[in-house]
Amino acid sequence: MVQYAKRRESMDYIIECMHNIMESLTNKELTSFGGGAPAKEAYPIELIRELTQSVLNDEEKAMQALSYGATIGLTTLRKAVQENLLIPNGIKANMDEIMITAGGIQALYLVCKLYLDPGDVVLVESPTFVHAKMLFDSFEVKCQSCAMDEDGLNMEDLEAKINRYHPKLIYTMPTFQNPTGISMSAQKRKHMALLAEKYDVIILEDDPYSEIRYSGERLDPIKTYTDSKNVIYANSLSKIFSPGARLGYIVADSEIMKDLVDMKLAIDTCTNGLTQAICAEFFNGGHYPSHLGNLCNIYRSRRDVMKKAIENHFPVGTKQTSPDGGYYIWVELPRGLDGRELLPVAIEEVKITYGSGSDFFVEENHEGSQYLRLSFAGINEHVIEESMKSLGEFFKSKQ
Amino acid sequence: MVQYAKRRESMDYIIECMHNIMESLTNKELTSFGGGAPAKEAYPIELIRELTQSVLNDEEKAMQALSYGATIGLTTLRKAVQENLLIPNGIKANMDEIMITAGGIQALYLVCKLYLDPGDVVLVESPTFVHAKMLFDSFEVKCQSCAMDEDGLNMEDLEAKINRYHPKLIYTMPTFQNPTGISMSAQKRKHMALLAEKYDVIILEDDPYSEIRYSGERLDPIKTYTDSKNVIYANSLSKIFSPGARLGYIVADSEIMKDLVDMKLAIDTCTNGLTQAICAEFFNGGHYPSHLGNLCNIYRSRRDVMKKAIENHFPVGTKQTSPDGGYYIWVELPRGLDGRELLPVAIEEVKITYGSGSDFFVEENHEGSQYLRLSFAGINEHVIEESMKSLGEFFKSKQ
Repeated sequence: MVQYAKRRESMDYIIECMHNIMESLTNKELTSFGGGAPAKEAYPIELIRELTQSVLNDEEKAMQALSYGATIGLTTLRKAVQENLLIPNGIKANMDEIMITAGGIQALYLVCKLYLDPGDVVLVESPTFVHAKMLFDSFEVKCQSCAMDEDGLNMEDLEAKINRYHPKLIYTMPTFQNPTGISMSAQKRKHMALLAEKYDVIILEDDPYSEIRYSGERLDPIKTYTDSKNVIYANSLSKIFSPGARLGYIVADSEIMKDLVDMKLAIDTCTNGLTQAICAEFFNGGHYPSHLGNLCNIYRSRRDVMKKAIENHFPVGTKQTSPDGGYYIWVELPRGLDGRELLPVAIEEVKITYGSGSDFFVEENHEGSQYLRLSFAGINEHVIEESMKSLGEFFKSKQ
Repeated sequence: MVQYAKRRESMDYIIECMHNIMESLTNKELTSFGGGAPAKEAYPIELIRELTQSVLNDEEKAMQALSYGATIGLTTLRKAVQENLLIPNGIKANMDEIMITAGGIQALYLVCKLYLDPGDVVLVESPTFVHAKMLFDSFEVKCQSCAMDEDGLNMEDLEAKINRYHPKLIYTMPTFQNPTGISMSAQKRKHMALLAEKYDVIILEDDPYSEIRYSGERLDPIKTYTDSKNVIYANSLSKIFSPGARLGYIVADSEIMKDLVDMKLAIDTCTNGLTQAICAEFFNGGHYPSHLGNLCNIYRSRRDVMKKAIENHFPVGTKQTSPDGGYYIWVELPRGLDGRELLPVAIEEVKITYGSGSDFFVEENHEGSQYLRLSFAGINEHVIEESMKSLGEFFKSKQ
């Protein structure tokens, strides 16, 4: 039997974590708060049907959608991203600084492929997005975690770890972070932007949730605080358009972008032309604002119901974050309750799954099992209320 | 400025080759025989319009197409691949041995990601598919080339190089090879299948052109000659369905497949749901045989015209391959004519581009510049005839 590459072994633990999360999602008998899928009600199926017709009825657009395309992406979609998503968020980027990717994870991937050698250090938040950790592990880097405060990364810990580990890259999701729902303060964003140049380190700013804000004030991305080439901005269109369309984007300096484009060329030639074209129609037809409004209404209500139900039904001493957007509430159980140990029991007894907090820390067997990640996005209010009640009672019964 | 990963540097030369090829494709003033795009007449736009409606009008299918999907791919499409493409070619594969990928290059990529460490040796054909070489270089492996005969890889040279270099992987495109159009004989396929086990080496069989055969007898894939887990079969749906749909597939032993699926999960979560669903409808609606028939009629005629035009118009002493399918004719110019040096002159004087043979050899500055790769797929008969006449006269004028 031919030996696998060394990177496979360095992925052992994270693959186990990912499988834990994914397995519960495929079991239809369970109510799952463990995943990161949008609300089914949030898919604009009818609109996509119309937009698809408009692409396929136009000979030129249809041909472009079905042919090999430029690796950097469809011009119309890049322009739409610039106008609808970048400029409104204060990101000034020329067209040659914007690339469409096959989903948000690929955007992160390409930056890794361009920058990371085995043994490099990547600083991540603690806890962090487990899928990004999987990606980093596949590059055989060493992930070091930095403490999080209620307003994002702890800057003292971050700077101390930069000095200690000399990282190649800092990975952060500053807005409605996955898994905690925490947003980094404007002051810290400004501070981070300065660090990119001061220490000559790449800041990979991952921003898939910022558009779906239900309350509070918009925060400018880290990228808006600096002209440094070292801040690379990555995003996904999965949460605001469709995950199945597999679309995301990167914003980077034009010189770096050339190399990111070459990396994408090497691994998959170009991004899906049909869904790029449909998504361009979606933005250019002016459908985005009302669609986003609908999404936010759905999620705001679900968040509110979940928040209240946790307050009402979970054991005394339970803490939870209060996200202004995104998909997740991060719950800390009272001392003595172990979310990881209890997960299989919860599946058995109340047919409910959740994200076990320990899966979101980069240290193997981290003592994070008092935490749960609960996604309110994909489940309606009634079921959220009922399930949080059952889950709360379940935890109380185990105290 | 933050340093790139070492792999970027090892890609310098191949990026130059790829850019040479791609630049000429984007210049609309040129007639390009340098690319690998299908005939525009071969896109089933009207059919795809219908199939898309049928997906999006079905609530369940539409929802599945727009949501996150299983990393291994849509069950209906995997089943369609099994029934329409694998069984007819003698490949026995269970459903858990078939994964859908985001195009054919990603299929190759995932095998690389699972198996290749920096410094590993990959044996390739000489000449070989330049995009695969780009992929290999991005893994910092050492590509060693093996001689090609008129019936595919030279088995003596191959076995000698296996013994000399102890490769981790052998990459071959046994049918209508890109760039030569050559097909490997059945006897050699059988022989190669044996080598996989004898030397415990992965054979990565890349097969994007075998379906578009216009003459001659079908040849069984290498994979059909062995039960060894070491033969992994990769293919693309770009040439028989649509490149813009970004679909391909891998067939591998179920245990290896689990790890390939994890590698895909790490880098892009899942493949585009919408084009998977449309492509499944395409096969399951029984449209493939007639569509393939149309394709073959188009390409057969173009091949015949190009072949004859080269015979008629190119300088005395020109040699060419006689492919029974695929997209390419490999031309050897008479001594004294240098295809690489003359390419910018041909662009200038006759507004025609072609693939410079030297780009398809893995050795830097290989003496392969007497060769040209000419793709007949994307250009109609009349223009092929006219252009080959101009190009032939151009070469004669440079003798």
